[in-house]
Amino acid sequence: MRTFSLEPYQAQFDALLVSDNHHKRYLSGFTGSGGHLLLTPMGPELLIAGKYWQQVEQQSPNCHRVCTDAIGWLGALQQRLKEHGVRRLGFEAHAMSYLDVESLRQGLSQVLVPTYDVVAPIRRCKSEQEVELIRKACAITEAAIELGLANFRFGMSEQELAAHLEFHARVLGADSIDFLIVVSGERGALPHGRPSQRIIGKDELLTIDFGVVYQGYHSDVTRTFCTGSISRELQQMFDAVYMAQQIGVKTLRPGIAASCVDKTVREYLALKGYEEEFCHGLGHGVGLQGHEYPLLTTNSLATLDVGMVLTVEPGVYLNGVGGARVEDTLVITEFGCESLTQLPRGLRNIADIA
Amino acid sequence: MRTFSLEPYQAQFDALLVSDNHHKRYLSGFTGSGGHLLLTPMGPELLIAGKYWQQVEQQSPNCHRVCTDAIGWLGALQQRLKEHGVRRLGFEAHAMSYLDVESLRQGLSQVLVPTYDVVAPIRRCKSEQEVELIRKACAITEAAIELGLANFRFGMSEQELAAHLEFHARVLGADSIDFLIVVSGERGALPHGRPSQRIIGKDELLTIDFGVVYQGYHSDVTRTFCTGSISRELQQMFDAVYMAQQIGVKTLRPGIAASCVDKTVREYLALKGYEEEFCHGLGHGVGLQGHEYPLLTTNSLATLDVGMVLTVEPGVYLNGVGGARVEDTLVITEFGCESLTQLPRGLRNIADIA
Ligand SMILES: [Mn+2]
Ligand SMILES: [Mn+2]
Repeated sequence: MRTFSLEPYQAQFDALLVSDNHHKRYLSGFTGSGGHLLLTPMGPELLIAGKYWQQVEQQSPNCHRVCTDAIGWLGALQQRLKEHGVRRLGFEAHAMSYLDVESLRQGLSQVLVPTYDVVAPIRRCKSEQEVELIRKACAITEAAIELGLANFRFGMSEQELAAHLEFHARVLGADSIDFLIVVSGERGALPHGRPSQRIIGKDELLTIDFGVVYQGYHSDVTRTFCTGSISRELQQMFDAVYMAQQIGVKTLRPGIAASCVDKTVREYLALKGYEEEFCHGLGHGVGLQGHEYPLLTTNSLATLDVGMVLTVEPGVYLNGVGGARVEDTLVITEFGCESLTQLPRGLRNIADIA
Repeated sequence: MRTFSLEPYQAQFDALLVSDNHHKRYLSGFTGSGGHLLLTPMGPELLIAGKYWQQVEQQSPNCHRVCTDAIGWLGALQQRLKEHGVRRLGFEAHAMSYLDVESLRQGLSQVLVPTYDVVAPIRRCKSEQEVELIRKACAITEAAIELGLANFRFGMSEQELAAHLEFHARVLGADSIDFLIVVSGERGALPHGRPSQRIIGKDELLTIDFGVVYQGYHSDVTRTFCTGSISRELQQMFDAVYMAQQIGVKTLRPGIAASCVDKTVREYLALKGYEEEFCHGLGHGVGLQGHEYPLLTTNSLATLDVGMVLTVEPGVYLNGVGGARVEDTLVITEFGCESLTQLPRGLRNIADIA
């Protein structure tokens, strides 16, 4: 829950309707997908069905509650806007469908003001409490990887191994699984490959990219393992990725351009002969969403700042051969960064874990 | 993949931009979230980043591919509309944000025509192939419940039991878990309760509501179990729910109003003294979405038709005491319905399964 002042927007609108579920949760604490949040000069109000009444009381003690059961949410909105003397109502242009805006136009007499990036910027730098939740999500993810890998046996498919990882994440208290990539052998060349029925073989690389949700906050960590001794080609690829990731992490600090971090890593991998083979962005912000501001890409306009949480995840993908990626989730600190993910980054043989 | 004719819409628009991901998948076969589908008089075209080129070739052989890498997706759209001589472009009012529509307005010279429910109605009645995928999703879900419950031991929390169910669903080949409700004892009174750290006790009711995704299609099944001998109050509640569900299923046939099915069940439960305690709709459609058309509610305007797939899921919830719900996913047939979920519906003791 975060207080929000309408004052800077006095010239544009008198109240703001928050429809983006992440923004709604961030500003109200309410975790449900129902309801609408209205930011008024008198404070935030949740327009919500009666069945969520108790949940709102517990999660959003600072929000005035308005029950929509009797007159519908649009009727309730109308009433509250009148009550507050609102003449210009801001709405979130990215989060309302064309259809939603049409029904606002039909149901309300207020001037509707589309707004852009009003709430998003204040979500960019995480509070200490938010960092702790992301840290906990990361800890669950990493423990689930270790405990899941302990179940590995030769003859197992990617899907079975994935099932063990998800099992432990759930037992460890994850709200839900965000995503899980398990790719082995030549499937390692798929940056976003879903776990398949492919049997994990001997002397291969195995990439695991895992993200869970804990109290709304996401984690994201990738490690590449081996299943025996690997070819020189694969070893060279892994070494380049490992070093590229270290280099990327070293550049992180407040004030640096996100594009510059991306460029530094990209140049190193190009030097090693993997210019084309690093075919995605270097990283992305992590918070209430698994992918959020800032992007670490060639064209990113973002500048890093204290409290931003983001990933650094270079990868190399050789079609028909295999791939490797190493990824941490890190928080920008006053003088650099701190990694919220801690598993060893070097190449480990999963037979030694199992 | 389903062919779609623009002919009925000639008076309104010359081409249709499909942004709804479910509609996109339904009409193109493409499973990714990226890209835009343009329905032209010459057939469907996917405007898509180069990295999805191969995936589109495999999944959408009938779609013309347009690469957006060089000129961006709006540039590519502009070009294709010119090519086809499109003057009026339809877009999906529910699926494009206000912001998206604004950028279309700025980037295109065509007249933009908001459309409502153009693609959705053809998704309502499922093809045989779609029913088979839902049947498979249901079979995975039910096998996962049985195999998961076999791991039950007293002392286990709802969360641990949930982890076992998810594990088996994954091993059995589910693409992903849609949702999983595991509530025991007095938590049974929460219709949408997430699995918690509550230890499952003896002589309680336990409700499991589980849905997974298989090749894009959803399943949804609820069974209520017991963990020993239960009170008369709980037994009466369960019996009423069980019978209510049977009655609901019996009413299903083409031509019946969805509201009438809901009403029949609601009246039975009212007779049994549970009018207030059945506090949600009776059911909902199932397909590419976990909840879709038709809704089985008091106010629903839908009429059932052959090929519709939907749930019947009455429940009774006694605050501070417990709850029970029984749910099947069924397909409407010429003379009634067929249940795609098969687990025994009567009250089973999970100690007998474990
Ligand atoms: Mn990532
Ligand atoms: Mn359901």
